[in-house]
Amino acid sequence: MSEPTATRSFDIDPLLARRSSPRAFSATDTLNQDLLGPAFEAARWAPSSGNSQPWSFVVGFRGDDTFGKIVESMATGNSVWAAHASAVVACVARMENEEGKALSHSVYDLGQAVAHFSVQATAEGLIVHQMAGFDSQALHASLGLDARHQVITLFAVGTPGDPADLPEKLREREALPRVRKPLAEVVTGSVSYA
Amino acid sequence: MSEPTATRSFDIDPLLARRSSPRAFSATDTLNQDLLGPAFEAARWAPSSGNSQPWSFVVGFRGDDTFGKIVESMATGNSVWAAHASAVVACVARMENEEGKALSHSVYDLGQAVAHFSVQATAEGLIVHQMAGFDSQALHASLGLDARHQVITLFAVGTPGDPADLPEKLREREALPRVRKPLAEVVTGSVSYA
Repeated sequence: MSEPTATRSFDIDPLLARRSSPRAFSATDTLNQDLLGPAFEAARWAPSSGNSQPWSFVVGFRGDDTFGKIVESMATGNSVWAAHASAVVACVARMENEEGKALSHSVYDLGQAVAHFSVQATAEGLIVHQMAGFDSQALHASLGLDARHQVITLFAVGTPGDPADLPEKLREREALPRVRKPLAEVVTGSVSYA
Repeated sequence: MSEPTATRSFDIDPLLARRSSPRAFSATDTLNQDLLGPAFEAARWAPSSGNSQPWSFVVGFRGDDTFGKIVESMATGNSVWAAHASAVVACVARMENEEGKALSHSVYDLGQAVAHFSVQATAEGLIVHQMAGFDSQALHASLGLDARHQVITLFAVGTPGDPADLPEKLREREALPRVRKPLAEVVTGSVSYA
């Protein structure tokens, strides 16, 4: 899979360098729980505050009920491409413990777990694209979650498809160079990056 | 570096498998911005909502002013081991955009960036241990951050030390097997993991 250009000041591990968030998913390839197993295993071993592991994941495969509920909650700008993916996943944070005490770092820790999922998925030749554009409350209801949990993000996971199959605007966006703020802007203190 | 036993249902990439959060840091090895460059570069290329990149990092090296400010903000249960590390880092989330609109996924995205940092650091032979136990408001003040930013976590980064140098209670904890909830408990929907 070719990667739109990314300018780096330091070399990074190929797994991290290869990871990106494409929108062109194969609409015919399928996944199953064994094929997703290593990526969820990686998420499982992410670090968390006090080893609270405040994350959970609700998985749907293309064509099944859970898939339909998750896609239905998406903003149309997301469902237009994500509905083609082999699987979609709702990423859930536990917001309080058994005693009703707020877990302050659940959302942060969920982000770490999904990052670990994405890195392992990349190792498996899969692509992952996360989304914040969806109706979290509607999905909370349709998935039957309790008040202690919130759906924070969704992601689509599958095998790469042909960008030519995307709507024109998304096809153009897919080919743009990848960009990030310079290191000097995001890392400060006792350092002085160029 | 030996790793306390971890039971896995699926094999994961060695980089992710090797990553853990030890407390025994070398108190003599030093780091500099070039040695930390690849890990920050990895953090820089993490995904974020709308590519907002709402993260920044304030770095201190053992013995300098920034290091002192960050260690001073730590709960003593953390400073007792983290003060030996070659570097400590304050992980900062931007909570609103230029127009004062809340950035809903900053904390989640910061978690992803730190996860990417940790994976790359592991590739460099470094160890990382994150902390939520610190006085975020005091550190916000001593680092001179503005109202749009919050310090969400800290981490220590360095080279492995000798667990025998840790206080007894931490030494014992360091040798315990690593544990996580079973996959079946955290991944649901159209899957049925053992």
